[in-house]
Amino acid sequence: MRTQVGIIGAGPAGLMLSHLLYLQGIDSIILECRTREEIEGTIRAGVLEQGTVNLLNAMGASERMMREAHFHHGIELRFNGEGHRINMHELTGGKKVTVYAQHEVLKDLIALRLETGGQMIFNAGDVSLHDLDTASPKIRFRKEQDGELQEISCDYIAGCDGFHGPSRPSIPAEIRKEYQKIYPYGWLGILIEAPPSSPELIYANHERGFALVSTRSPEIQRLYIQVDPKDDIANWSDDRIWTELHARLSTKDGWKLIEGPIFQKGIVAMRSYVCESMQYGRLFLAGDAAHIVPPTGAKGLNLAAADVYVLARSLDAFYKSGKIELLESYSTNCLRHIWKSERFSWFMTSMLHPNHEHTPFERRMQLAELNFATSSRAAMTTLAEEYVDGSLVGQFTESGRNVLV
Amino acid sequence: MRTQVGIIGAGPAGLMLSHLLYLQGIDSIILECRTREEIEGTIRAGVLEQGTVNLLNAMGASERMMREAHFHHGIELRFNGEGHRINMHELTGGKKVTVYAQHEVLKDLIALRLETGGQMIFNAGDVSLHDLDTASPKIRFRKEQDGELQEISCDYIAGCDGFHGPSRPSIPAEIRKEYQKIYPYGWLGILIEAPPSSPELIYANHERGFALVSTRSPEIQRLYIQVDPKDDIANWSDDRIWTELHARLSTKDGWKLIEGPIFQKGIVAMRSYVCESMQYGRLFLAGDAAHIVPPTGAKGLNLAAADVYVLARSLDAFYKSGKIELLESYSTNCLRHIWKSERFSWFMTSMLHPNHEHTPFERRMQLAELNFATSSRAAMTTLAEEYVDGSLVGQFTESGRNVLV
Repeated sequence: MRTQVGIIGAGPAGLMLSHLLYLQGIDSIILECRTREEIEGTIRAGVLEQGTVNLLNAMGASERMMREAHFHHGIELRFNGEGHRINMHELTGGKKVTVYAQHEVLKDLIALRLETGGQMIFNAGDVSLHDLDTASPKIRFRKEQDGELQEISCDYIAGCDGFHGPSRPSIPAEIRKEYQKIYPYGWLGILIEAPPSSPELIYANHERGFALVSTRSPEIQRLYIQVDPKDDIANWSDDRIWTELHARLSTKDGWKLIEGPIFQKGIVAMRSYVCESMQYGRLFLAGDAAHIVPPTGAKGLNLAAADVYVLARSLDAFYKSGKIELLESYSTNCLRHIWKSERFSWFMTSMLHPNHEHTPFERRMQLAELNFATSSRAAMTTLAEEYVDGSLVGQFTESGRNVLV
Repeated sequence: MRTQVGIIGAGPAGLMLSHLLYLQGIDSIILECRTREEIEGTIRAGVLEQGTVNLLNAMGASERMMREAHFHHGIELRFNGEGHRINMHELTGGKKVTVYAQHEVLKDLIALRLETGGQMIFNAGDVSLHDLDTASPKIRFRKEQDGELQEISCDYIAGCDGFHGPSRPSIPAEIRKEYQKIYPYGWLGILIEAPPSSPELIYANHERGFALVSTRSPEIQRLYIQVDPKDDIANWSDDRIWTELHARLSTKDGWKLIEGPIFQKGIVAMRSYVCESMQYGRLFLAGDAAHIVPPTGAKGLNLAAADVYVLARSLDAFYKSGKIELLESYSTNCLRHIWKSERFSWFMTSMLHPNHEHTPFERRMQLAELNFATSSRAAMTTLAEEYVDGSLVGQFTESGRNVLV
């Protein structure tokens, strides 16, 4: 087999990239080790920045989203028993975030790729990368996990295969510099059947730990509490989870959390991670393959969108006019928005999670940060701007059109 | 002896308080363990917020300052070999900082107190506080260090005697909650005879350590470099100091530091510290007696001014109308501006000092903070607002008049 751009991974980065390339007349094949059903069935977060929505609009991938998504004009920061709304819409001159679950974005993109003749190979096994430092890099894999070994010959390879995929380890270790922070916080997340308790997300910093109220749909809610990342979900009965949620979200004015049957629960650890460089020879990493953010800033999917926007534009410059300057500076260009959103995600995570290792002074600094973030208009503006449009600003214009030019 | 308000300490807090009380018709005596010459001869920092200047104006203590001070409309943050100016004047709607050394402020205040018949006892020995939880608290001391023991009977006592003075320890330990952070940074400061190298302050974060360029007068400059706080000044020859300064302040565009004879050098450690509550019975702490900030935010003198403004207003309410509500909430009212400026000082200190204990990820977060602080208009606005007017805002009106009403 042969293609111009071999894409490893059918997550947000791989699917968006494939369709952006298609719109630019560039051929690609997506290889994915999971089945289509697995991808479409895994419920993930879904806070989309304005720029990401613009990009999906420009790609023609937003029809259902614009119909079914929820649009949030603010978030609440809750501490010392009081809620403080950050009016993002007003502070950013009319921008908003779009709440639409990641697996719904993926369903829409897969459907769109199928409609437009995109080649996607799901359930691929033994994916490996070869000849990256030559003009003809190759991907080998087995169809249906245990089939015969096959090879795709490419001009370029995009590694969109997440943190645990084979792309990043294909970059020689000696030219890969890794930056990492493992937080002493885990998020115990539950999915419940209930109407929303709040029209907007609530981020609470309580002595007992962080809590987050978010929503997936009018019938399904997503709630989180901070726990020890090494804790076992078996230690958390439904009762214990509700007790913590009620305690951490309680307010002086008696706000009430609406309960409902818990139909999924699990604990995730939190890390910040960046790999420099994001490119090696003809391989380019995008999304979680190159960087991880803790979920507190809601940046994961948006960073993937920003990366593939930069990559699609760089590949377009090469195929349209033979210019390789943008491809050569891909990593440098991406790392600008990546470190910016890494900072924001680290800042939100640091501000919102009580840390039992903190001294009383450090706990007071955290509360002082929250006070400042909710009382200074300039500070509220920084938070609002980074939250609604931190990743793609500077890479992407308001109208979303320049990617297609 | 008897007075309405016994003031311990003739630093900025004590002297400003004494004169504010005088203007309100309230009698006070200042006790100070140092001589007048020591106080007037110790060169200290002097970055005054707009609110502090307004207060000194309103007190009639600013005539020489307005003639001799320098007014700075911005500061520079320097990192990765590039300078980034924060235009504070433009970002805050026309505010500026006033650079006028602290000992000059003290000279002016002492002269003003003498002119207006203020009682100041310098070189006092064995100062101690008594009967704080009665209606008639007392201060005992010796005149001229080894004189006879004397006693001042007061209505109230203001502890303005700095971090090491006797006032704070007079609050019973069990009702004193202390918050503290000792930073692993020291500042090696030098005074030199030279013209200014820069019209505004330069805060530099360099791999080798922090450096600060500031000015005292057209002829005297104050420069700092970050060192180990436990280092011995004997290890630092003039040559070594200049080598570090040139390295840390170097820019891609070849900016030059002007050298000159070093006539003073020393190393200071850095801490953040807050004592809650700031009051006990009839004793009220103000300034460094109650809280310490690292010098990076230039807040020390300004916090002292904010405290005594609140205290003078509270005492005035009592003496004019017998109301004790303001006095009772003195600590609560002050802690609002104190934690705000503690946050800013901690933020500036954390952002500007490379820390050899940091992981590569944490170092990148520091650079990302600097990038954000110098590229987002909203972030620059938070920095400018806190720097030019962080301490007194909300306690003090623009005109500076309300303290005298």
